Amino acid sequence: MHKQRLRKADGRPLILYSCAPLPDASVPPSPGGAAEPPNAHLRWHPLRAEWVAYATHRQNRTFLPPPEFNPLAPTTDLSQPTEVPDTPWDAAVFENRFPTLTMSAHDPPEIFVPTRPGLGVCEVVVFSRDPAGSLAALPLRHVELLIDVWADRTEELGARPEVEYVFPFENRGVEVGVTLHHPHGQIYAYPFVPPIAARELEQQASHFGLHGRGLLEEFVDREISEARRLIYAGDDAAAFMPVCARYAYEIWIAPRRAVPSFPELTRDERRDFARALKTTLMKFDRLWNTPFPYVLVFHQAPTDGQPHPEAHLHAEIYPAYRMQGRLKYLAGSELGAGVFTSDTVPEEKVKELQAIDVIVDD
Amino acid sequence: MHKQRLRKADGRPLILYSCAPLPDASVPPSPGGAAEPPNAHLRWHPLRAEWVAYATHRQNRTFLPPPEFNPLAPTTDLSQPTEVPDTPWDAAVFENRFPTLTMSAHDPPEIFVPTRPGLGVCEVVVFSRDPAGSLAALPLRHVELLIDVWADRTEELGARPEVEYVFPFENRGVEVGVTLHHPHGQIYAYPFVPPIAARELEQQASHFGLHGRGLLEEFVDREISEARRLIYAGDDAAAFMPVCARYAYEIWIAPRRAVPSFPELTRDERRDFARALKTTLMKFDRLWNTPFPYVLVFHQAPTDGQPHPEAHLHAEIYPAYRMQGRLKYLAGSELGAGVFTSDTVPEEKVKELQAIDVIVDD
Repeated sequence: MHKQRLRKADGRPLILYSCAPLPDASVPPSPGGAAEPPNAHLRWHPLRAEWVAYATHRQNRTFLPPPEFNPLAPTTDLSQPTEVPDTPWDAAVFENRFPTLTMSAHDPPEIFVPTRPGLGVCEVVVFSRDPAGSLAALPLRHVELLIDVWADRTEELGARPEVEYVFPFENRGVEVGVTLHHPHGQIYAYPFVPPIAARELEQQASHFGLHGRGLLEEFVDREISEARRLIYAGDDAAAFMPVCARYAYEIWIAPRRAVPSFPELTRDERRDFARALKTTLMKFDRLWNTPFPYVLVFHQAPTDGQPHPEAHLHAEIYPAYRMQGRLKYLAGSELGAGVFTSDTVPEEKVKELQAIDVIVDD
Repeated sequence: MHKQRLRKADGRPLILYSCAPLPDASVPPSPGGAAEPPNAHLRWHPLRAEWVAYATHRQNRTFLPPPEFNPLAPTTDLSQPTEVPDTPWDAAVFENRFPTLTMSAHDPPEIFVPTRPGLGVCEVVVFSRDPAGSLAALPLRHVELLIDVWADRTEELGARPEVEYVFPFENRGVEVGVTLHHPHGQIYAYPFVPPIAARELEQQASHFGLHGRGLLEEFVDREISEARRLIYAGDDAAAFMPVCARYAYEIWIAPRRAVPSFPELTRDERRDFARALKTTLMKFDRLWNTPFPYVLVFHQAPTDGQPHPEAHLHAEIYPAYRMQGRLKYLAGSELGAGVFTSDTVPEEKVKELQAIDVIVDD
């Protein structure tokens, strides 16, 4: 992996990643001039015991591109600068111009619940130079490069003292609110371990304490040996519809070994994790021969300076549809009680994905 | 409140509620013939430590009404029976034909996570005979009757040994997945305290233990005395945008006194709670002069046989929009990390609702 660290005129870092060496570059482009340093704050929700993030500068965006303008495509017309230069990079990472969390956060309001500055980092990860592509359609070694990028970002962002958790994710499709179709993901570096990750880590720690073995490691072993809900099993990684899937087409992807986070993956594990991910996403897109909308998230060990032998890196994919043409709406039971309801079982639903053969070239 | 308990030919109970006495009735209608007794099961999600509900009979619905057929309207044409008779009831409650939880649940599958039968009750609450109405538009005493209905259902369902939590809610609008516009809500009676309620109760119990006073009671007091985010304050109930709102237009409604659940509300408290609810929903519908989609949930004390002095009944309303024409999508940060992100603050957003004057007639 080659890596080129640049800085935009407005001060934001831009990091270019590529399989081949990159030529020297000048100051990279940025759409719009220098903005006010963003501010953001967190408020404590005492009933749910969680932080809520407020970033009002996001509302006052000065940046309203014409619909045909794609800020994630390489800049070809210097009078219309995008976020990325026209050099032969494979993936690009930059700080969101209108972040939810920012290192410039200061002076949270004084109200009757605890508050704190919304410290953290929100990055955009451009998956490819090609606006018409998708994560699923990238060559295997390009997906593997993205795993290197997630590992690199986890190390670099996690090393900051303010950051306790690095959370890469991809929102894909208008059904989950995305209007920019250029393939890209995001990374949120939180100043605390977010509640869902915290909950999972708590369960994993308690299991590890009792059994001296990882909860997810055993789970993955069972899914592989039963094979009923499996859609990919390689030497080092597996993809399956978990026995307790909350979404109709939910898929988890994990290394077989209990690797706590991206940086600890070996080269072989990265390649097989990439293959499991690409296989899954190709099956999704082939299911109805249309781009399949989803939220893809990665859960890994916190970067809070503590050891986390209980943590096991994995992807969870939450597809927007429960059947063709039918969205899954989260409503009363899911949002207000926390109980997911499904009218299908994983053992049946997974057959639709198992029936699709995909070929992943090396 | 008058109450008439009936039973449909397929065995499901139907309960009619009204302000005035009801005439004697014969066997009430039911769309479709007797169905297979439904089955459902729960699977334990070991990473999130929560139950997931599976009810596959919901998928195999034999009941596919023509679009113009409204199963919640009084039956006028006996050849097209609906769920409710044409008698002068004000509200009607019946068991969902295709429930997520059911007392007939049996034989959960044997898989490698814990399972149990999906025991419980799923009821539909028809708010009014008028298909074109809405909860907001009902007369105040009709909304008060619905509070009596929720109290009655909490007592009756909560008294069943299988039921540990009674959860009334309303999903409103196509934006949250509702296609049936006849005003109605639902009640889920769960065989466990659901995770979000459990989390809130845990926080409330810990606060109660430390301070001998309710967490939400103090919260409501602060919202009323500061008045910045208040949209209604009566003698017995208040409605406000909470200081830690997760949704742009989120509103909470609570009795001022720390009443654990619906049945314990006094007559005065019921009336004022109804007024707070109606005021809030009228403001919502007036905001853009169009029906305002939301998920409305009620959190109250469990019916697990334990005392819950920490519990404080309240409504939480999660509106679908964050501004006119812009839906709030739950995506990576909310669904995968549990961190809500907002580009507005409650102190600004509430002004839009405060600026709307509504008149609630007695």
